[in-house]
Amino acid sequence: MILHSFKNDYSEGAHPRIYEALQRTNLQQTEGYGEDFICAEAAALLRDAVKSPDAAVVFLSGGTQANLVLIAHALRAYEGVIAPESGHINGHECGAVEATGHKILTLPSGDGKITAPQITELLREYNSPHVVAPRLVYISQATETGTVYTRDELKTLYNFCRTNGLYLYIDGARLGNALAAERGLTLADIANFSDAFTVGGTKNGFLFGEALIIPNAELAQNIKYSQKQHGAMLAKGRVIGAQFEAMFRDSLYFELAAYANEMGLLLRDGLAARGVKFAYDSPTNLQFPIFSNADVEKLSKSYGFNIMGNHGASGSVVRLVTSWATTEEDVRGFLESYTSL
Amino acid sequence: MILHSFKNDYSEGAHPRIYEALQRTNLQQTEGYGEDFICAEAAALLRDAVKSPDAAVVFLSGGTQANLVLIAHALRAYEGVIAPESGHINGHECGAVEATGHKILTLPSGDGKITAPQITELLREYNSPHVVAPRLVYISQATETGTVYTRDELKTLYNFCRTNGLYLYIDGARLGNALAAERGLTLADIANFSDAFTVGGTKNGFLFGEALIIPNAELAQNIKYSQKQHGAMLAKGRVIGAQFEAMFRDSLYFELAAYANEMGLLLRDGLAARGVKFAYDSPTNLQFPIFSNADVEKLSKSYGFNIMGNHGASGSVVRLVTSWATTEEDVRGFLESYTSL
Amino acid sequence: MILHSFKNDYSEGAHPRIYEALQRTNLQQTEGYGEDFICAEAAALLRDAVKSPDAAVVFLSGGTQANLVLIAHALRAYEGVIAPESGHINGHECGAVEATGHKILTLPSGDGKITAPQITELLREYNSPHVVAPRLVYISQATETGTVYTRDELKTLYNFCRTNGLYLYIDGARLGNALAAERGLTLADIANFSDAFTVGGTKNGFLFGEALIIPNAELAQNIKYSQKQHGAMLAKGRVIGAQFEAMFRDSLYFELAAYANEMGLLLRDGLAARGVKFAYDSPTNLQFPIFSNADVEKLSKSYGFNIMGNHGASGSVVRLVTSWATTEEDVRGFLESYTSL
Amino acid sequence: MILHSFKNDYSEGAHPRIYEALQRTNLQQTEGYGEDFICAEAAALLRDAVKSPDAAVVFLSGGTQANLVLIAHALRAYEGVIAPESGHINGHECGAVEATGHKILTLPSGDGKITAPQITELLREYNSPHVVAPRLVYISQATETGTVYTRDELKTLYNFCRTNGLYLYIDGARLGNALAAERGLTLADIANFSDAFTVGGTKNGFLFGEALIIPNAELAQNIKYSQKQHGAMLAKGRVIGAQFEAMFRDSLYFELAAYANEMGLLLRDGLAARGVKFAYDSPTNLQFPIFSNADVEKLSKSYGFNIMGNHGASGSVVRLVTSWATTEEDVRGFLESYTSL
Repeated sequence: MILHSFKNDYSEGAHPRIYEALQRTNLQQTEGYGEDFICAEAAALLRDAVKSPDAAVVFLSGGTQANLVLIAHALRAYEGVIAPESGHINGHECGAVEATGHKILTLPSGDGKITAPQITELLREYNSPHVVAPRLVYISQATETGTVYTRDELKTLYNFCRTNGLYLYIDGARLGNALAAERGLTLADIANFSDAFTVGGTKNGFLFGEALIIPNAELAQNIKYSQKQHGAMLAKGRVIGAQFEAMFRDSLYFELAAYANEMGLLLRDGLAARGVKFAYDSPTNLQFPIFSNADVEKLSKSYGFNIMGNHGASGSVVRLVTSWATTEEDVRGFLESYTSL
Repeated sequence: MILHSFKNDYSEGAHPRIYEALQRTNLQQTEGYGEDFICAEAAALLRDAVKSPDAAVVFLSGGTQANLVLIAHALRAYEGVIAPESGHINGHECGAVEATGHKILTLPSGDGKITAPQITELLREYNSPHVVAPRLVYISQATETGTVYTRDELKTLYNFCRTNGLYLYIDGARLGNALAAERGLTLADIANFSDAFTVGGTKNGFLFGEALIIPNAELAQNIKYSQKQHGAMLAKGRVIGAQFEAMFRDSLYFELAAYANEMGLLLRDGLAARGVKFAYDSPTNLQFPIFSNADVEKLSKSYGFNIMGNHGASGSVVRLVTSWATTEEDVRGFLESYTSL
Repeated sequence: MILHSFKNDYSEGAHPRIYEALQRTNLQQTEGYGEDFICAEAAALLRDAVKSPDAAVVFLSGGTQANLVLIAHALRAYEGVIAPESGHINGHECGAVEATGHKILTLPSGDGKITAPQITELLREYNSPHVVAPRLVYISQATETGTVYTRDELKTLYNFCRTNGLYLYIDGARLGNALAAERGLTLADIANFSDAFTVGGTKNGFLFGEALIIPNAELAQNIKYSQKQHGAMLAKGRVIGAQFEAMFRDSLYFELAAYANEMGLLLRDGLAARGVKFAYDSPTNLQFPIFSNADVEKLSKSYGFNIMGNHGASGSVVRLVTSWATTEEDVRGFLESYTSL
Repeated sequence: MILHSFKNDYSEGAHPRIYEALQRTNLQQTEGYGEDFICAEAAALLRDAVKSPDAAVVFLSGGTQANLVLIAHALRAYEGVIAPESGHINGHECGAVEATGHKILTLPSGDGKITAPQITELLREYNSPHVVAPRLVYISQATETGTVYTRDELKTLYNFCRTNGLYLYIDGARLGNALAAERGLTLADIANFSDAFTVGGTKNGFLFGEALIIPNAELAQNIKYSQKQHGAMLAKGRVIGAQFEAMFRDSLYFELAAYANEMGLLLRDGLAARGVKFAYDSPTNLQFPIFSNADVEKLSKSYGFNIMGNHGASGSVVRLVTSWATTEEDVRGFLESYTSL
């Protein structure tokens, strides 16, 4: 019997305050397509939170959708995207970016992050019409391996991008976790050091929903056309707006992310104390312990998790994910199970 | 002050039972991406309702998304879509179908419906590589003008399509309204007389959500790839699944649609009794009365509605939409306002 | 036996001077991809001819290719094209423009031309994200029905486009014929009153080839990327360059077009003198006489031509095309055949 | 002064017999769009040469065009292409394949070739809707590094593809060179062991042109639609047809390729005899000697060539290309220059 699943941070429904928010305005009539007062309020809260009073805010239903809408919007037909090989758009979105016509140029990355020198080298090769024109750099914050760009890393990357005529776009599916993990990095920094980014809801207690925020005014122009064209404009836009309103009315969004991280670190520290090594050094709610295959088999009888790959001849890299809905008991149970293997 | 908006059937949140259903399973952990038990149950209920035990069922977040996912999935690059000029994909979806690479070939239509003879004529012209190869016929049921294909009309169209190697796809954004209006037409008929169709939720009391149902097994193959590629696969697929489960566990879906129609007919008959003429003869929740521009101006002070176009020199065609959330009082209030103009 | 085909202006190979030009430089080694001295010379001649010293010049192999390269290059993903319903891109290019993701918004046109008031009306409807954003106006000069925009018409249309943020693109597959027909309209006018246009070669004595000329510097930026991306950059770009060099070294291009028109008018006047009526009033090498179906059948035994459609119960609109390779004898033969029917 | 350029096999115009063929039929009137008797004859010669009497034959103007037309034709929207990282479609075609919506999944390759075990491993990863569905394997014969698949390698790869539901498509831009180099491999083998392939003309003495041959009848269906949609159907299709007719009427195509290889080997053996090492072991007209940077600089004063990359701290990998137009004198001159460095 599975006691708890550490597979994802989207295994449950939503935080109770999400339902409260939706029901509070349920029978009030509004305009459709995100032109309602609820979305307006949520957008205002977000603009305030990112200290970017003129940023465009678009509410979308999921991460792949947000990525493809922004990228298709940003690029001319012959332009391409630079991304780490491990980037979500490259390996987990069924070619969504390519389906909009754009090539992804990948950079190798040990920890899921990429750097200006890597891009410099790539730009040297990509400088003629025989190859696409790189125009946008895609990164994830936190990355797919749970790591986090520091404020300095982000600032350096953004300044490099500006100098080189590249947009910097940050996939923030786990932005809350990144901010909670990285002291000295704020939501306003994210807005200052990027042309566009998402504030992920799905993985942080929402029913669903991401906010695409575009501080770059020129890039933001006509974004609603791109949203509509990709089937990403809900008739009842308010359904996402209300959720963001609930989360950003006070600090709930950050509290849930901090809690998820706390559970992740509890897992990490507990396992480390038991001698477990990790594939990545993650300060967030994604942890990648290396277990022997024998242990993996035993643990999988009581816990759900994903296996990321082999480690040596007889080990595996495992992914454990915690969330707002993970209890301390869930974590302690797992640690005890490991101890008693 | 606006007493009530008749602009849309998606002006409110959701029916209370939608929230109940979502909250009932809220903390149960499930697989992501629609692979959960809630979606499985909802899909089973739908397959049962359409009497098509092997049909593919895909849960999507909106109508434009459903249309573009199915059409992009169905067609080879050089194939095109046949649709009435008034079809939603042609005039209201920001070129979403063309953005996936496919031309829409339009047919004129007085009442929003198209016929086999019209398509026959079109096929005569579209018969060489200098033009796209027509491959799919798109219709809406109910149509954008509130009209409904009868069972015989649908059967004839479907048989024509089969004979001519064309898919028939039915946009069922208001399928409940169509079925409630047209005695002798069942959900099973819809499945029998089409290759794919949607069961619209957004306009019938859901927070959001459409079910794309594909009775044609060959067409259904790999549909999840197309769903993912267009950013249309929610991580928490259960959020749509639970809503369909709530609506199809019993007859709630049909009851809400029938009620919306009832309110539509109350409006229609009330206006007709007052001598108003209509642009289309609609038996559903969309009504298109013709008002003088003077009346339009006065009515618009107390009621919300859309103006579809001019009628003669001094009149307008107005669109009035009722829904599960429209009360009899709302309708009677409107009729009284009209009387007292 | 078919004495002569009036089906097309591309029924023969090439004018002898085309071969001379190709062979003259045959064994000289050059750079590839249009970066050679032959293309440079041809581009210089064209820039001179259009009196637009900074215009970009791109050599392409055909008209559909030129249209799709320019349009895909010019537009953002959510933008659309305005064109006459009879425009080549709408009805004869197998959805090539839509295959690059863009919707074509058509305007009705009796004679193949469109006007600013028509576009004004369209723009009123196309003003929200529910529909694509019109961005480029496509016209043909000469049109598909042989008619020609006057200098004033062109100037008016172009100024309207500029004022409204629209590109004006002229498909010049038969530009030579248009210029030869319309006194007071020069190649420099074409460049002045458009953002981009083609100078068609295929239909005017080339083996193949079109020059895409882009006077609008902002639009021209990175055009070679779009050329390459659509497989439209010949490794031996010189093969097209040499042909344009041959044609624009002196006035050969214009002479051939004028001659083709002359043959067209000989046909027209000869038939008119015999009482024949025409579907369009064309001053160029395309003529559209209306024949009885009985006459069509008899004429088709000795002459090749295309039938464009029915005219009344027992007549047809026929398309007769003359070219640089049509002889006066061919025309007189046809006229005599008609007389002796 | 540059004595000779070894940059490309498309630095000159065309073999004299190409002009003869074009001029022989110059004034004969034909149908357009490849529906003429010259193309029919050329296609018949090609079908005969590949011993595949029912294969579809399509004449295209260049390699990138051929690749994108075939790949866009072959794939459903959610399907992807497998290719060696060094494949032409991946690094030299400005994202042309992605522009048609399809992701390229690359495999590392030391010598430009890929193998069934590599693909097996890739297929293990690509097995869910979160990633594209691999459907077509792209290889080049000869490869971009001058190497050649043997008959056995090709047969093994093809059988693997068939078993796994993958198309095998061979980019034959230098197919003549491959066949001339690899005894025991025939044109009929190429047709037997692939679903589609090109016979390259541009690099083997044509003015321009490639023949796309599709032995797989199901894949060939409607290929002319894809040809037209991508602007790849010349109005005067005969211009390419006549060139293939000239080359395949007798064995000219093979003679030119064999001669180009002979010149390549003369270069290779001459340099090897002088102690030069090579980056790849190529039996064809592409040779990749490793020179010191000092030598590169000196040689570049008299000879044109491309530098592929660094070799160690002070060396470079150079690409030398020979062709039908390279003379023995050109080669001997180069060797002597090298000797006298």
